[in-house]
Amino acid sequence: MRDIGVGVVGAGYMGKAHSVALKAVGAVFDTALRPVCEMICTTSRDGAAESARAFGFNRSTDDWRTLVNDPKIEAVVIASPQKTHREIAAAAFALGKPVFCEKPLGESVEDSRAMVAAAAAAGVANMVGFNYVRTPATQLARQIIAAGEIGRIVHFRAEHCEDFLAGAETPANWRTRSRSAGTLGDLAPHMINGAHALAGPIDSLVADLQTVHETRNGPDGPEPVVSDDQAHFLCRFESGAMGSLTFSRVAAGRKMSYAYEITGTEGALMFNQEDQNALYMYPLGAPRGRDGFVKMLTGPEHPDYLPFCQGPGHGTGYQDQIIIEARDFLRAVETGEAVWPTFADGLEVNRIVAAVRLSHEQQRWVRVAEI
Amino acid sequence: MRDIGVGVVGAGYMGKAHSVALKAVGAVFDTALRPVCEMICTTSRDGAAESARAFGFNRSTDDWRTLVNDPKIEAVVIASPQKTHREIAAAAFALGKPVFCEKPLGESVEDSRAMVAAAAAAGVANMVGFNYVRTPATQLARQIIAAGEIGRIVHFRAEHCEDFLAGAETPANWRTRSRSAGTLGDLAPHMINGAHALAGPIDSLVADLQTVHETRNGPDGPEPVVSDDQAHFLCRFESGAMGSLTFSRVAAGRKMSYAYEITGTEGALMFNQEDQNALYMYPLGAPRGRDGFVKMLTGPEHPDYLPFCQGPGHGTGYQDQIIIEARDFLRAVETGEAVWPTFADGLEVNRIVAAVRLSHEQQRWVRVAEI
Amino acid sequence: MRDIGVGVVGAGYMGKAHSVALKAVGAVFDTALRPVCEMICTTSRDGAAESARAFGFNRSTDDWRTLVNDPKIEAVVIASPQKTHREIAAAAFALGKPVFCEKPLGESVEDSRAMVAAAAAAGVANMVGFNYVRTPATQLARQIIAAGEIGRIVHFRAEHCEDFLAGAETPANWRTRSRSAGTLGDLAPHMINGAHALAGPIDSLVADLQTVHETRNGPDGPEPVVSDDQAHFLCRFESGAMGSLTFSRVAAGRKMSYAYEITGTEGALMFNQEDQNALYMYPLGAPRGRDGFVKMLTGPEHPDYLPFCQGPGHGTGYQDQIIIEARDFLRAVETGEAVWPTFADGLEVNRIVAAVRLSHEQQRWVRVAEI
Amino acid sequence: MRDIGVGVVGAGYMGKAHSVALKAVGAVFDTALRPVCEMICTTSRDGAAESARAFGFNRSTDDWRTLVNDPKIEAVVIASPQKTHREIAAAAFALGKPVFCEKPLGESVEDSRAMVAAAAAAGVANMVGFNYVRTPATQLARQIIAAGEIGRIVHFRAEHCEDFLAGAETPANWRTRSRSAGTLGDLAPHMINGAHALAGPIDSLVADLQTVHETRNGPDGPEPVVSDDQAHFLCRFESGAMGSLTFSRVAAGRKMSYAYEITGTEGALMFNQEDQNALYMYPLGAPRGRDGFVKMLTGPEHPDYLPFCQGPGHGTGYQDQIIIEARDFLRAVETGEAVWPTFADGLEVNRIVAAVRLSHEQQRWVRVAEI
Repeated sequence: MRDIGVGVVGAGYMGKAHSVALKAVGAVFDTALRPVCEMICTTSRDGAAESARAFGFNRSTDDWRTLVNDPKIEAVVIASPQKTHREIAAAAFALGKPVFCEKPLGESVEDSRAMVAAAAAAGVANMVGFNYVRTPATQLARQIIAAGEIGRIVHFRAEHCEDFLAGAETPANWRTRSRSAGTLGDLAPHMINGAHALAGPIDSLVADLQTVHETRNGPDGPEPVVSDDQAHFLCRFESGAMGSLTFSRVAAGRKMSYAYEITGTEGALMFNQEDQNALYMYPLGAPRGRDGFVKMLTGPEHPDYLPFCQGPGHGTGYQDQIIIEARDFLRAVETGEAVWPTFADGLEVNRIVAAVRLSHEQQRWVRVAEI
Repeated sequence: MRDIGVGVVGAGYMGKAHSVALKAVGAVFDTALRPVCEMICTTSRDGAAESARAFGFNRSTDDWRTLVNDPKIEAVVIASPQKTHREIAAAAFALGKPVFCEKPLGESVEDSRAMVAAAAAAGVANMVGFNYVRTPATQLARQIIAAGEIGRIVHFRAEHCEDFLAGAETPANWRTRSRSAGTLGDLAPHMINGAHALAGPIDSLVADLQTVHETRNGPDGPEPVVSDDQAHFLCRFESGAMGSLTFSRVAAGRKMSYAYEITGTEGALMFNQEDQNALYMYPLGAPRGRDGFVKMLTGPEHPDYLPFCQGPGHGTGYQDQIIIEARDFLRAVETGEAVWPTFADGLEVNRIVAAVRLSHEQQRWVRVAEI
Repeated sequence: MRDIGVGVVGAGYMGKAHSVALKAVGAVFDTALRPVCEMICTTSRDGAAESARAFGFNRSTDDWRTLVNDPKIEAVVIASPQKTHREIAAAAFALGKPVFCEKPLGESVEDSRAMVAAAAAAGVANMVGFNYVRTPATQLARQIIAAGEIGRIVHFRAEHCEDFLAGAETPANWRTRSRSAGTLGDLAPHMINGAHALAGPIDSLVADLQTVHETRNGPDGPEPVVSDDQAHFLCRFESGAMGSLTFSRVAAGRKMSYAYEITGTEGALMFNQEDQNALYMYPLGAPRGRDGFVKMLTGPEHPDYLPFCQGPGHGTGYQDQIIIEARDFLRAVETGEAVWPTFADGLEVNRIVAAVRLSHEQQRWVRVAEI
Repeated sequence: MRDIGVGVVGAGYMGKAHSVALKAVGAVFDTALRPVCEMICTTSRDGAAESARAFGFNRSTDDWRTLVNDPKIEAVVIASPQKTHREIAAAAFALGKPVFCEKPLGESVEDSRAMVAAAAAAGVANMVGFNYVRTPATQLARQIIAAGEIGRIVHFRAEHCEDFLAGAETPANWRTRSRSAGTLGDLAPHMINGAHALAGPIDSLVADLQTVHETRNGPDGPEPVVSDDQAHFLCRFESGAMGSLTFSRVAAGRKMSYAYEITGTEGALMFNQEDQNALYMYPLGAPRGRDGFVKMLTGPEHPDYLPFCQGPGHGTGYQDQIIIEARDFLRAVETGEAVWPTFADGLEVNRIVAAVRLSHEQQRWVRVAEI
């Protein structure tokens, strides 16, 4: 057991989440590496100082280079806007420092390819923040699939729908002003990664995108919305399974509907992140008249649950996923082994996003290999 | 109030359901026309006689022409195999007799076009048995949409999934031996009609089909499966709304998952036929912190519920939909007015099915207008 | 197969339900006795004639004696107010005619005892309308319990809660003006019978009753409410199992919450009539980490489902329970065998109701044997 | 903002939970007092040292007196067995140190009375670990009730059921060997406190207890079970509302069924800890035909949710409740104000437990004032 100095770039939503996780992870999981909250960086000096105070960091800075270059920083967590990911990661890798980067990895396939190359050249741990695949229930789903309990997957239906932009009167914001911050660029990556984790690589797809509300009110009156409000695609996985994925930020009533229904030749699984402590499983072959979906509440016998609580059904929450992620990143740093999802896995998500755009633009099926 | 002699062709699953409905409909709804179960027809003389006895018909026959031509038969219910629909309907229409025909209407677009023409030439009532749109909950959904309570529909996701052919070891049957009896031809018509009822006509679509188990055991060993096990498509409705529909007969655990999620600009609706007495609605604009999907249990204030029961939450079932259908057909006969879904509506379903096949064969988006 | 003339006394909520059931039952179940809707009786001559026309009876009367004495009437269905039950049943039994009587049987234990005696003296079929124990799901629950699948019952929690009198502003009606028409007298009998059906006879109990709204608006202003709005009791069953039952007519939001949770030494069952096509079962001994409540949708393999529909998950409704009841009554008439629940079973319910009142009045545990 | 040295007595289930909470609470909530994990105590020296290392404490001891007396310890968390609570608390209070004590407070009413007196004499912060009332959903329920949104409470039904001792073959353990560690003594306190929090003080009750499995296998063969397996009681609250509470450790399938249904004159609430991120509310007065229970997913607008996550529906978990508790205890220490539930509230729970035992022994209604 030894201490490791960690620097966090970004002090917003995810910057805070990672800070809390760094504080808690050692006590929850008894990790070999114990993170020290060494420095936090955000765009203003005062803001950074305030974040350091609030989240319990030793020092702060408004310059990410200072953080990356600091000798006490042994690992870097990037939780700043997407457009900054590539440069910060490159700087850290150049110094041989492991990097955890929030999703989506790069702004483009090209960006992500460069980041994967930089990570490979550095030969250090690299990981992307697709946290939802780390809930105990979804880890359990992966175990069940890997063990063949539902047979061969033949259909994968999934969605990531929220409603934070539902209603024509919801005002414009940064997400409506950047083409890459739409539903496809912002929400879809989580479930595209989830699809990969649960059903394997995608071979080909056909997609549709739509901006439902073409203008929204900004500070100076109506302004155009340049990003998509909803997106969906059909696909074939490399395994031959059929897939159907839907994404929306205008799905009235869906608050965190990261959800999937997986049909296999021997059974089925269903999950919705809004009820993240239950996984529903239908095992084909149950006694006649006694079959049905089983509501399995997560508990100590399921992956990464016990360190949070000894009782089944007591439940884990959003913050706990980030703690699990922190444990995995520390393990990657410690062992030097790749821990899924690596930057290379993050690149795969960018490729699917690009394939979706291409399919929509050309109104045709697209092979992912084209990207 | 007067009696009307009805003949039923077919004495299987749906033949029985319509027989029960004809017995009960007058007492439930106090209809102006009171059906008399005059004659039933099935392929063997003994079977027909036995069905007449069991279901309470006055007479029986093994020749549908005898039934159609019988002077006491004033209206015909067709519940025989799909390939017989066109000829029987034509004969009835030629005699000016109204026809209720089970879904799917004709075997092909051509068949259904001919049936629509024959109905138009006869100028009598004609209706297709898409019963699921008649549950009180789905009628309520239509009311809510028509009243603008969820605003303009922007996304329509639906499925009709069952699992009667899940598992590789489930043996071959008539559905696996006929291309038109696959999931697309057999299950999908219900929800394609439902999509039309709830979200309006479809403009264009892109589809994928799959036979998951390419052979199944028959009486003489493995035999090829010539129909699809699962199908799905993306579409754009004429309104501009996006759609995503999924169909399966191998969806382990889904027993009667005729289900939809409809997203509008002012709210959303969710329904699953497996819990047919609840409609979930999310109204945008509920007080902050008190919003959520409302589970509305069907009750006397909802369409066609009260005649079955005065208490809310007591529930209607499958057979009750058929009784509602019978009421509507009798009303069409009585008034001469078209009652939705007419044969013309049935034809629209055939066109979508044909468009799905074309899209799959050519791996491209298809305009329904091409069909 | 032969016809049997049936007379129905009462043309309200349940009178209509039984009329529809008599029309449909033969076609649904292929019964040996085919009911003929011979005569219906209600309090006005015009009302009776109108009901006969609407429900399809041959004749009508405003005098129940005319109906009972009519030679074509071979069996009597009593669906008139509770206070009339005893006298009508007595007259029918005196003529040796079988009687189906709506719940609750008699107005008092004394009434019901006399009715049981009259039935026994006549030696003919007699049955009480506790329809909810006849849903396929609850019949399945009884099968599961009888087969020992959940072991020995150790706890039985149940309720029958509705909200038709929720809110202080809901006006007075006949239920608020009669002590016996409160929640205990009116709603509780269904679940008291259900408790007996599922967990066996009750040995002793301790109860509490309450009138929540002591006055309600009547046509002439506020008037006192003389019946209870809510009631609950703890009990011990003769088996030693513990029980807890709750009843309410002011349970805001509960529309038809006839619900139970049954805990056994080997598993558990859960049910709510608001979702009457699902029974939830937890079997102790499922594989570690794969256990949970199984949502079993009713289907053709479950009791009395197949005659209504060949597909699982398609569902039965309220009216179907009454059809099942009619089938059972016809069977009792045909065979002369007692079909549960007989008048004697109806008396048991009255005894529990009386025990609850006594317990509440004396604020103590009461042995049912005291009644 | 200043540091405060905290000592934790006990390193089991709850000792770890509090340790993690102390690590995370400052970063989550930006508390004025920042806890320093100064010392942890458990019964063996090696165990204590190992816990200190694993959970991140500065020092360890196997003697709670060392911990309490240490000058750097400014506040004490008691998470050791119940029988030790009184003595440890007394020692801490004697030194003027604030105490957080795990539930149940004392082993008996007498114990708890002494602890309340000691706390009062010291005049320092004191709090009991009834964590479940701190989930955002249950805090929301309390807000809704306090604001009068469901009117006056008329019925409160609740349970705390688990199944860790379901099945006759589950072996004996410490809970089966101590009368006070049964369902009533061990599980019930959580919901008794919850009842108080949600519906106010209880006036009187009548109860029943049962040991379902009278012997269980121990290391030397079957041994008697001296504590209750299940318990339930009816009550009247001081407000006049009726209550019904059920507790079980043999409730097959119920993993963490800390659940309540609260009926008011203007609406109702439902909650189950197994799905802790949803609160169901039925508001009386919704538009006719659009009413139903609303599934409200917890989100940033609800109490104590936002510090964990900015997105609604993302969810909090078990460990987060303990973090909320830590925040509240720190606030009590900081301000000197009582933060509910204090030791006095813990005593109230003991009194109800004692009243339940008395009622069961004497088979009668008991006024809580008798205790």
